[in-house]
Formats: sequence, structure tokens, C-alpha cells
Amino acid sequence: MASATQTAQFPDARSSDPAVMGWMVGSPPPPEHILRFEDGSYFRFPAMRWSVSNFRQLMPTVNISRGLNGSAPLLQALRDDIDAVSFVPLDSETPMTWADSLPANYTDGIIILHRGKVVYERYFGVLKPEGQHGAMSVTKTFIGTLAALLVAEGTLDPERKVASYVPELSVSAFGDASVRQLMDMTTGIRFSEDYADPNADVWAHAAAGNPLPKPADYRGPRTYYEFLTTVQSEGGHGEAFHYRTANTDALGWVLARATNRSVAQLLSERIWQRLGTDQDAYMSVDSIGTPFAGGGLNTGLRDLARFGEMIRSDGTYNGLQILPPEVIADIRMGGNTEHFARAGYTLLPGWSYRNMWWVTHNAHGAFMARGVHGQALYIDPTAEMVIARFASHPIAGNAANDPTSLPAYAAVARHLMAQSPP
Amino acid sequence: MASATQTAQFPDARSSDPAVMGWMVGSPPPPEHILRFEDGSYFRFPAMRWSVSNFRQLMPTVNISRGLNGSAPLLQALRDDIDAVSFVPLDSETPMTWADSLPANYTDGIIILHRGKVVYERYFGVLKPEGQHGAMSVTKTFIGTLAALLVAEGTLDPERKVASYVPELSVSAFGDASVRQLMDMTTGIRFSEDYADPNADVWAHAAAGNPLPKPADYRGPRTYYEFLTTVQSEGGHGEAFHYRTANTDALGWVLARATNRSVAQLLSERIWQRLGTDQDAYMSVDSIGTPFAGGGLNTGLRDLARFGEMIRSDGTYNGLQILPPEVIADIRMGGNTEHFARAGYTLLPGWSYRNMWWVTHNAHGAFMARGVHGQALYIDPTAEMVIARFASHPIAGNAANDPTSLPAYAAVARHLMAQSPP
Repeated sequence: MASATQTAQFPDARSSDPAVMGWMVGSPPPPEHILRFEDGSYFRFPAMRWSVSNFRQLMPTVNISRGLNGSAPLLQALRDDIDAVSFVPLDSETPMTWADSLPANYTDGIIILHRGKVVYERYFGVLKPEGQHGAMSVTKTFIGTLAALLVAEGTLDPERKVASYVPELSVSAFGDASVRQLMDMTTGIRFSEDYADPNADVWAHAAAGNPLPKPADYRGPRTYYEFLTTVQSEGGHGEAFHYRTANTDALGWVLARATNRSVAQLLSERIWQRLGTDQDAYMSVDSIGTPFAGGGLNTGLRDLARFGEMIRSDGTYNGLQILPPEVIADIRMGGNTEHFARAGYTLLPGWSYRNMWWVTHNAHGAFMARGVHGQALYIDPTAEMVIARFASHPIAGNAANDPTSLPAYAAVARHLMAQSPP
Repeated sequence: MASATQTAQFPDARSSDPAVMGWMVGSPPPPEHILRFEDGSYFRFPAMRWSVSNFRQLMPTVNISRGLNGSAPLLQALRDDIDAVSFVPLDSETPMTWADSLPANYTDGIIILHRGKVVYERYFGVLKPEGQHGAMSVTKTFIGTLAALLVAEGTLDPERKVASYVPELSVSAFGDASVRQLMDMTTGIRFSEDYADPNADVWAHAAAGNPLPKPADYRGPRTYYEFLTTVQSEGGHGEAFHYRTANTDALGWVLARATNRSVAQLLSERIWQRLGTDQDAYMSVDSIGTPFAGGGLNTGLRDLARFGEMIRSDGTYNGLQILPPEVIADIRMGGNTEHFARAGYTLLPGWSYRNMWWVTHNAHGAFMARGVHGQALYIDPTAEMVIARFASHPIAGNAANDPTSLPAYAAVARHLMAQSPP
């Protein structure tokens, strides 16, 4: 768990503001303000704060079309009493206001919907309402939701083995896992995801998926799919929740084989074109055009909020039943809390993971999508509230931002319920 | 001039259809159907026919936002009498129908507007109404139009020397040219643009602008801007029209300095957000994020048609005066026909070039934007007609597709005038 002390190593949100720092501004930008994908400069803090709103300028991407339809109106009911809402951070005894939580979390943009209307909306740094931001692991939640939709429709059998959809994975640890185990991340695979460890598997995964030409001496897997075939087993399947990005990439491969569509096409056809989005979304791709299912999605903040509101509304939005209600019920039911407890998330007691959603099992039945550096889509059915947040926290792990965000969300939920009786 | 014999070296439009060929389809695609930017496979014919509709999947790009506004309705008045319109190709004595001209020109998508309404619209291969296609040198026309707008507003002085806006260009042949000479491509610069010659300057320009990491032994300029500083003089300025892509890149640099905005930002703010476009557009960028002003724009076909209709309508569209009428008048007036004649375009007798538009000076006062491989935006004020076309002709030069397109456009114009009296 990250403490305030860890964050204190980094410049704060205001002094790391990417608009103030002037990354990539100028014709040409001064050399010290140029960010490149090839040398990794783009993802070092604080430069990363610019890059998360500009991934497409750094790498190839595939479009997720909204089609040519009009967007669904996002009604406004802005209120000025949210900033003063107070809460006590998880790692502190000193109350903090909602307004102060936003820089504490290096928030780039945040929207609160209450009963489907925008009650609060803020943008910081270089993110604009008409921009897109990396959703990071919130991507996984979209992929898991698509999988749950296909299960509900009978296109995907959650009990079938992964290798029966993707024979190439029979040589990997994924082969004899079930699709359901991928969807709930209870596979037993060796895949270390400690971003602070340069030898972690997640870096081999990133090297495989890197769309740039491989170095001449590179001997590893050359695509996301090739990487997945090399994943070895560690422990048994179905015994515990292990958060592993590779599960989502494997699930993306299963979806592609089950539907003859890439996850980008599926996301466009099944969700983005129906949700009344304002903007196309996009995904990063590897060298053969495979979308990065584990974390490559970029969306507008308002469109992320629309997706959350559709989920809160039992799958209905923009006048359409976009997901069957049983998919939403299955997400809200959550996964196996004992499996989850074995993962040791001390900040998330009693939670579970289902269809790539994080389920709190709290008194409000809240559940959420979570991405590294603080992306969040938080749905509180009891408070009729949806929060969509993009962020660029310097620490790559939600334990660094949970202390000042989870209790803040709960406090705003209580506030909205108290101030706006049904 | 390309003849039918040259085209006959290539598979025809139907047998090179990128949807039929299955480029980049599959999870993963079969190796022989994988296209890569790094090895040039993406731009060999017929693979290029897929790539022109998918440039963003191959390279980094910058978004040209349409904002979050609704789109301007593109009213339909479809008619079924266009396909049978007959014309005689420039290099032939045998009449051809409009319908047959489309595969002859390897058309990927085409829209005809008459009096602002869509009378004809077709898509082929992998282009869809909700997709974007490389506009190639039609990009130049957008940049030249932006420049003309800034001149009309007084932000840009066309008589000032280029070096007074961009001091770095004082060491190049551009330095003592006027902005107007850039806008009309009458600079005297050494820049061979023979795509068939591997030593042509256009390839050095492409190497400089290539966003991929440079090879270790690469010694050339590393960005578009660096390339421009190396351009040497050849002949005097203001004496003749010489079609040179580098002029537009230099003009883009001037615009960036005059406005403190990239051409992508300018295009978004001044045109794309006001035109009621359906879709964001995008531009390819070099390794430091500079948009490729000479050819990097990608748009939806309907949005290209909207731009044309705005030009035809004296700058008014979507209820807004997007360009002042004097800009349109200046484009229609055209450039110096004697300067143009010195360039030796035998298929374009009596034409001129102004603000990066090609002006026919024919009886209808038609003028157009032209891109390599057959992109076109053709405006016939007399016939109240706009034609927007994307294409992927195997031969990199409009002389290959002019014979079956220019007389076809004129024939449709006459047909519309005859069939729909005012």
C-alpha cells in the first residue's frame, strides 16, 4: 500500500500539470519538451501526464467508431455543493474535502452523474471534454462486459476450455482454463505484474506487444498472441483471484475467435455505436494490428460516464437495451469473495471480481472498473450515482490512490442521497 | 501521361479489392495478409488499397476534433440516372459510362452533391461511410485554404518573406520566397517528386518525416522541419508553378508560427468544429508530433463533401460563415495561367493553381483539390455540383486517372444541369 510518504517523492498535481509544463508545444517543441514512444520518455512522470491524453500521437491505434448517429444528450444538473463534501482518507485521520482529493489523486478529468444527470464535471491539465484519455485497465472491464454479453446471448460458453476456442493456447497455461476463469481472473498462470520490477513478466508482455520494429537481437515473442502462447502455469485454475493483464488479452483472443471480430470491432458494434457516444474511441495495437485488450482503450470522459450510466440502468441507455438485464445482475452479484481475499488487497476487504468488474459488496452494492494511475468508473446503485475519472497518478497501482478516492466516492454518494431525497 | 497500357500491368479494381483480399483479417491474420509500416509492405499495390483506409493503424496520428456538436444534416436526393451517364475518356475514342469509370479509377468511395444534396454515393473495398481515408495531397488544399483565411483576416501577410515568419528557413531556398509564392507553389526549389525514382527528394522528405526510430547509420534530417531547412534553390521564385509537396510543409510551418497552433489544431478550430462534420479527422505526424501538412490528412468522405459544399456556397455552411466570401472568390479567380503552363501538364491545358487549389478556368469555372492515387474534390459552380472521391489507383500520379475522371465529372455536371433546370 502506498502511503503519503511515497507520493511525496513526486511533484504535486499543480507543479506537474502537463499544460503548464508545455510538453510537445512549439513548432518544433524545445528538445527538452519532446516526448517519444521509442525511448520511453513519454511514460516517465511527469511527462506521462501529457501522454495519457495523447496516446494516438505516440503509437498506431485502431478506431472504435461511434457510427454516424447523433449522440445521446447528457443532461446537466450541475451543483456547487460537491467540492465541500468531506471524508477521511483510508490512511489518515485528517478529513479532506472532495475538492482537495482531485489534485491529491492527480485527477485529469472527473464526472459525477446523479440519476443520470451531470452534477459535477471538471477537467485539468491537457484533457478536454472533446479529448480522449487512456482508460488503462478500465479497458478490461469493457472486454469482460462484452464477454458477459456474448455468454448471455449463447455465443460464448463460459464453461468451455480456452483451448477449444483458441487451439494455439493449448501449449500455454491458459489452454485448460475455462472461459469463466479468464473472465474472473482465477486462472493459475505465472505473470508477475509488479511495474516496479524490471524483470516482471508484464514488461515481456509489453515488449511483445510493442508496435515498433523489434531490435535485431530480440528473441522474445513478437505479438500479444505469441506472448500468450508462452505463459506458464503457476498454481491451479479456479482457486484464487489473481489480477493478471494477460487474462484479458487471452479473453480478447477468445472473443475474436468466437465472433470473427476484433475486440475493437465488437466494442464499436455492440456498445459504442449504440450508446449515443459523442466521440469515437480508440485502442492501441501491436505490430499485427491486434488491439491491446488488457489496457489499450482510450475514450472521452463523457462517453465513459455514459457507459457507466447504461450499466447502472440495467443495460438501458439512449433508448436502447444495450445489454440484457441479466448481464448487469451477474456483474452486481460479484464473484467469489474467498477467491478474492486470497489476493491480499488489504484496502479492499470483502470485495470480489466478476466479468472484469471490481465489486465492493458494500451496503450500497457499489462496483467499479479500475485502471492503473487512478482511472475509475464507480457505480453506486443505491445512491443512483456514477463517477467516471481519468487520472495520471505517479504511482502505478491503485493502492496509491484508493485512500483518497474510495472514501471520497462513498461520501459523495451519502451526500447526494441526503440532499436529494427520492 | 499514363496510358491504359500502364494500368494494365496491375490487377483491376475488382481483383485488387482489399475486402476480398482479406488484408489484416484474422486473429492473427495469416502472415501473407499482414501489412507493416516498417517494411513498406503496407504501401505496395494492391495492399495499399487497404492501408489508405487504415493509416492510423500503421502509424501515430493526431486527432482533428469535430468537437461535441451535432453534425450538419447531409440531405439525400439520390437518383438512379448517374451510372448510365456516358463520356469519352481523354486518352480514348470509346465512350465509357460513369459506372464503369469507378473501377477504372480504383475508386474507394464517391459522393456527388447537387445543390447541396447527395444525389449519388458509393463505397467500395474496405471504406465505409463511418470510416476515414487518406486525402493525400488534398491535404494541401486544406492548408492553402487555411492560409487564405488567415490572409483575409490579416493574421498572415502574403507578401512577407518566409524567413520573417520562420527564421530557421533563412538558410534554405524558402527563406526569401514570399508566403504567397508558397501558397501558389511558385517557389524555385530543388525537390524532385518523381515517386518512381528511388533517389527523388520526396523520399528523403519521407525518411525525415518517418515517425519510426531512425536507423543507427541514418545521417539525414530527422523531422519535417529539419528537412525543410535543407532544401536548396533551383530557379527563381515567382516564375513558374512547380508542384512540390515541400512548399505545403513550409506553409504549415509558417501557419504554426503565425498562429501558435499546429495545422491540426487550426483545422479543428477553424473548419472541422464549425462544418458540422460527422467524424473527427486525423493527420499523420513525424517523430516530434508535427502534422504532415503536405499529405497527412485523413477524413470521412461525407465530411470531405461537406467541405466542398461550404466552398461552393461562398464559405457558408451549417448556418455559419466559415470562410469569408473573398477567400472563395480568390480561389475561384485562380493563379497565373502562364506560370502554370510552364509546368507542362498536357492534360490540364489553361489551368492554374491558387491557394493550393487547381483551377480549370473552364466554361463552368470548375476548380478542384487533387491527391495522388486519385483523391479528388471537384467543385463546379455552374452546375451547382460537388464531387468528393477517395481512390487507390495503382499509379502514383493523377495523369493516370484524369483521363477517366475529368471528362466524367464534366459529363455528370452537364447531365445534372440538363435534367434539373433551375
